[in-house]
Amino acid sequence: MSDLIPTPQAPAPDVLRCAYMDIVVTDLAKSREFYVDILGLVVTEEDDNAIYLRSFEEFIHHNLVLRKGPEAAVAAFAFRVRSQEDVDKAEAYYRELGCETRRGDFTKGVRNAVRVADPLGFTYEFFYEVDHVERLAWAYELQGAGALVRLDHFNQVYPDVVKGTAYLNDLGFKTTESIKDETGVTYAAWMTRKHTVHDTAMTGGTGPRMHHIAFSTHEKHNILYICDKLGALRRSDSIERGPGRHGVSNAFYLYLRDPDGHRVEIYTQDYYTGDPDNPEVVWDVHDNQRRDFWGHAVVPSWYTEASRVLDLDGNLVPLIEREEPKEIEVTIGADGFSYTRKGDTEAGFKVGGQV
Amino acid sequence: MSDLIPTPQAPAPDVLRCAYMDIVVTDLAKSREFYVDILGLVVTEEDDNAIYLRSFEEFIHHNLVLRKGPEAAVAAFAFRVRSQEDVDKAEAYYRELGCETRRGDFTKGVRNAVRVADPLGFTYEFFYEVDHVERLAWAYELQGAGALVRLDHFNQVYPDVVKGTAYLNDLGFKTTESIKDETGVTYAAWMTRKHTVHDTAMTGGTGPRMHHIAFSTHEKHNILYICDKLGALRRSDSIERGPGRHGVSNAFYLYLRDPDGHRVEIYTQDYYTGDPDNPEVVWDVHDNQRRDFWGHAVVPSWYTEASRVLDLDGNLVPLIEREEPKEIEVTIGADGFSYTRKGDTEAGFKVGGQV
Amino acid sequence: MSDLIPTPQAPAPDVLRCAYMDIVVTDLAKSREFYVDILGLVVTEEDDNAIYLRSFEEFIHHNLVLRKGPEAAVAAFAFRVRSQEDVDKAEAYYRELGCETRRGDFTKGVRNAVRVADPLGFTYEFFYEVDHVERLAWAYELQGAGALVRLDHFNQVYPDVVKGTAYLNDLGFKTTESIKDETGVTYAAWMTRKHTVHDTAMTGGTGPRMHHIAFSTHEKHNILYICDKLGALRRSDSIERGPGRHGVSNAFYLYLRDPDGHRVEIYTQDYYTGDPDNPEVVWDVHDNQRRDFWGHAVVPSWYTEASRVLDLDGNLVPLIEREEPKEIEVTIGADGFSYTRKGDTEAGFKVGGQV
Amino acid sequence: MSDLIPTPQAPAPDVLRCAYMDIVVTDLAKSREFYVDILGLVVTEEDDNAIYLRSFEEFIHHNLVLRKGPEAAVAAFAFRVRSQEDVDKAEAYYRELGCETRRGDFTKGVRNAVRVADPLGFTYEFFYEVDHVERLAWAYELQGAGALVRLDHFNQVYPDVVKGTAYLNDLGFKTTESIKDETGVTYAAWMTRKHTVHDTAMTGGTGPRMHHIAFSTHEKHNILYICDKLGALRRSDSIERGPGRHGVSNAFYLYLRDPDGHRVEIYTQDYYTGDPDNPEVVWDVHDNQRRDFWGHAVVPSWYTEASRVLDLDGNLVPLIEREEPKEIEVTIGADGFSYTRKGDTEAGFKVGGQV
Repeated sequence: MSDLIPTPQAPAPDVLRCAYMDIVVTDLAKSREFYVDILGLVVTEEDDNAIYLRSFEEFIHHNLVLRKGPEAAVAAFAFRVRSQEDVDKAEAYYRELGCETRRGDFTKGVRNAVRVADPLGFTYEFFYEVDHVERLAWAYELQGAGALVRLDHFNQVYPDVVKGTAYLNDLGFKTTESIKDETGVTYAAWMTRKHTVHDTAMTGGTGPRMHHIAFSTHEKHNILYICDKLGALRRSDSIERGPGRHGVSNAFYLYLRDPDGHRVEIYTQDYYTGDPDNPEVVWDVHDNQRRDFWGHAVVPSWYTEASRVLDLDGNLVPLIEREEPKEIEVTIGADGFSYTRKGDTEAGFKVGGQV
Repeated sequence: MSDLIPTPQAPAPDVLRCAYMDIVVTDLAKSREFYVDILGLVVTEEDDNAIYLRSFEEFIHHNLVLRKGPEAAVAAFAFRVRSQEDVDKAEAYYRELGCETRRGDFTKGVRNAVRVADPLGFTYEFFYEVDHVERLAWAYELQGAGALVRLDHFNQVYPDVVKGTAYLNDLGFKTTESIKDETGVTYAAWMTRKHTVHDTAMTGGTGPRMHHIAFSTHEKHNILYICDKLGALRRSDSIERGPGRHGVSNAFYLYLRDPDGHRVEIYTQDYYTGDPDNPEVVWDVHDNQRRDFWGHAVVPSWYTEASRVLDLDGNLVPLIEREEPKEIEVTIGADGFSYTRKGDTEAGFKVGGQV
Repeated sequence: MSDLIPTPQAPAPDVLRCAYMDIVVTDLAKSREFYVDILGLVVTEEDDNAIYLRSFEEFIHHNLVLRKGPEAAVAAFAFRVRSQEDVDKAEAYYRELGCETRRGDFTKGVRNAVRVADPLGFTYEFFYEVDHVERLAWAYELQGAGALVRLDHFNQVYPDVVKGTAYLNDLGFKTTESIKDETGVTYAAWMTRKHTVHDTAMTGGTGPRMHHIAFSTHEKHNILYICDKLGALRRSDSIERGPGRHGVSNAFYLYLRDPDGHRVEIYTQDYYTGDPDNPEVVWDVHDNQRRDFWGHAVVPSWYTEASRVLDLDGNLVPLIEREEPKEIEVTIGADGFSYTRKGDTEAGFKVGGQV
Repeated sequence: MSDLIPTPQAPAPDVLRCAYMDIVVTDLAKSREFYVDILGLVVTEEDDNAIYLRSFEEFIHHNLVLRKGPEAAVAAFAFRVRSQEDVDKAEAYYRELGCETRRGDFTKGVRNAVRVADPLGFTYEFFYEVDHVERLAWAYELQGAGALVRLDHFNQVYPDVVKGTAYLNDLGFKTTESIKDETGVTYAAWMTRKHTVHDTAMTGGTGPRMHHIAFSTHEKHNILYICDKLGALRRSDSIERGPGRHGVSNAFYLYLRDPDGHRVEIYTQDYYTGDPDNPEVVWDVHDNQRRDFWGHAVVPSWYTEASRVLDLDGNLVPLIEREEPKEIEVTIGADGFSYTRKGDTEAGFKVGGQV
């Protein structure tokens, strides 16, 4: 079914981790209020056109760039590599794939990076040289009750998850978990470099699009506080889904939507995956606890909405529809079903028309 | 609109607190698994027909009686009073109201109580004499990660909330919070004796019925653990609503359904209400954060389903429909509406057809 | 041994709860930094001479008055009573005891109070009329990670604990816990009005002095955060003892010292004590887990240091030495001993010269 | 000063992480009670002579082996490597160093490992082949309130920290933090492979000895619960130090002593260190917040006591005294000093004779 991307002869760069996302927002003041005043990310630097933000435990210049623009979109998914040689390796790797590549300083604080229009249509950046800034891990006087301490992962929407996953595996990402059905269709997959469950994931759907960017807190109560604060500010309509416990990843989660609709996950406590033989966990798409371990329904917008992505020239990348079955359709509604206990015929509160 | 219960001349008994609920379950083994094996309540005593359970910080014989019977229902809502004289006062108080009353030992561990068929159709018990048992507050070796430490409150469904509230105010319960609309309709009210937000509440709806019984944990993570455990046991379909933050009461909550459908709330962290001039908080029924401060929709079953109650002879009390507008209808769906920000016309994720 | 205070014929006032403490500080700016900038108490009102502070869930004007003065001391321990009539009752009660009493408005926000020079030498205030202010329970956007939500209790140092306790029992306070030895000496006692373990306590020692004032947080992590913040601010030398778990009260605790040396406890999660037959817990003074359930040594300053108290004219009340054995001497050092397991002769890490 | 271990020409093995410790205990039943009944580690396998334990998120056979023997000691510190080839590399690496090496299956579940008598006198094991077992990350029904989810690190005592650190750096461990003084003396250093602050650390002192083995919990309240449980079981004398916040590592910690005196740390929430240019944090030995960010004194036993280690034949490795200044002596007591604020002459509660 899948028409896979060929594996280059050139060696893949040694990717350390997802490092920052470069996103376009339409109203910088509104976005600043959301990410700085409400979520409490640290401003490393800002000017009239962009704001550079980082999490409290970060020592590189930024984890998120908010860039003013006419239309909300994602300019780049940036990964840090082990050395400047790995930036060169990345460039060669993508050139062999026939992808357009550009070298340069695309944001403040980062130098000699390469950006590539990858075979799936996403703009990836690989960089090593970056300004170090103060790691505010010990600066508790600055940390609010919902302190975001790390960038954890990206999540990308793409029609063909098998194809996307194989491409990322070639690039050195190890698959840790996936959602499949009994016929072999893959609905989503999670892939890692940095010893957590993922640095990025492929979610099946119309794409290429950006599903979400995720920041970590230390504990679950930090996430609950963010909800409380949004309620207190009468911004609870920013909460799209959760908080809850994921089946996949075993992490505790919350999904928010920023003023432009970009989705932000707040995430904590997945598990160590650094061994090469780390066992992959495969979830049945009909298992009602796969995406919410407590069995709560996933809201439709979470399945259907996502941010458009830009090419190297800043133009919207055209969308491709998913041909395979869609998770939302096979799990809920007239044609779908989910179970709490496999083989159980009893419906319970969680299946059927209640929500 | 309301045809109020007359205020007796007899003095009201000095009610200390809601103390235990006496419920009928259809399968004692299944109920034991739910309340003891899963929720971890402490068994004070049990036989073939009944199980007496208490929370970890309780020093009286029980907070919950599970009684085997042919049909799931509630036999009594029991309140502890300050002295044995207050039991007599309760008896006189209800006799003046023309209610049937009975004296006796209705459960193990409790003596010389009075049970009354109250003017709303609920069976209330008032007692003072009770066996003391070990307070297991310090017994951390027995407490699981989701330890239930106190009985917090009851919640009753009744068609006319104003009538029910006035009756309870006469009995000495102070109203702490309520949900109303701009025309003066009251949808629910919360009333207290023991310095928390409530010992019982009146929820508008077909009644008399029992909406839920609530136990407290110390912290929010204890409640999250209960969800995790239910997921691990593939019992997530017991989770009806939450976890979340209430607007009303400001407490953190979770609603479960036991094997008979009796609703159990797990609850933590409301506020002190012991001053006589404690300010009543009135919530607008259209405020989307009143029942969930994070704006999440209340599932329909939570509004419509509740447990039947029994009279003094153990027969089901007939139901009366609510004549006033129903909360579910005025807040969601074709004829209802809710807002995140009063006066805001923007819909957002939380209003409309998404869930 | 004890020469008890006579029980008045006059009825005791109906005390609701400990409500505020009026303390003298020597540098208002330094105290403001400690209580407002660091601990996050809410400023209700302030001027050049005094700052009125409250906790987030409070609806009365203040829980703490910081008053500028030449010498650090405590001007009054203030209790709220059920009605204005109870203020009159308090006045009559103390007059019968031969105590000096004064009526008036002693602080902003509180009217028609009575202050008394009590038989032990403490200045107590009883008041009902008070300005209501906004209860900030739901104002999460204002609450930091270590939010103090309630005033929980006072703690007083007095040489003769039996005498002090009997006096407070007469005033309507119920004893919940105490520390005694096998010969009958009482080292400390805890007494309540508001359904928690205490509104005030008597700690045996040179007195009358104020041992500490305690504020509550919702959860234990809030207390840990306060420690982290003090560390981050290089103010860790404000931490005198803890955090830890109390044996007495079963609460989680932390003791700080303010810039004048006034001791502040941060406290969470004791248990309900509202029933009249609430069982009193008596701890053995030699039980090493009585004051710290984890067996950690109490630092000497915690036993020996406390704040002086003022009479109605603002003069220091003379001190009386404790004649009975002192807890510090019977539990540690050459003449004292403590055990982890009663009857156990093995020393372990917690007994002996290690700390 | 230091006589460094030469750097081998042979490539170092690719170490993934600290994986298990093999310790000798004198009473298997008592140790089982401590590690299984109290701490809740999962038993993978056991017989009359050994118990194989793992943490809840582990998928390899064990993280701790308790082996019955005549004298408490440590048989091996075991690291997992990326492949079986890396086991061979390890063997060659140590042979070049002139160290004795042995190949074999030293414990159940692990095959084709190499054990080496390293240049410092510690027995290190390197292995790849291991039985996979069920990862119990999702098995919340089995996890208690203090669930240990991962093995986090080892800590070794050695006289010459510079020498030990250089040796581990050669082996591919990156230094993340250290404690030094103004004259250049190094008192301790932390080194990592797996993206956390450490897989092992060198603590200056009489050695070679094992200072502690550390397991992680998800949250801080899990650690507090372990203290509460030990209190409830009247085992609080197992608590040697903490709970508290480390300065070094920024983690939350607790130190326990097992029935043989082996030290176990419970640990949570340090930070990501996976980038090659991760900034090393150097702490001043006189900074009173370096080992406890809240400024609490380190108990003397923590500095002076540690477990003996065994050579490949199971004999105790002779001890070497530390020649450089000792941390305990330069920080407390007659000749030492610590500060809360550098340059501050004021003592405060934390310096001086109080504890």
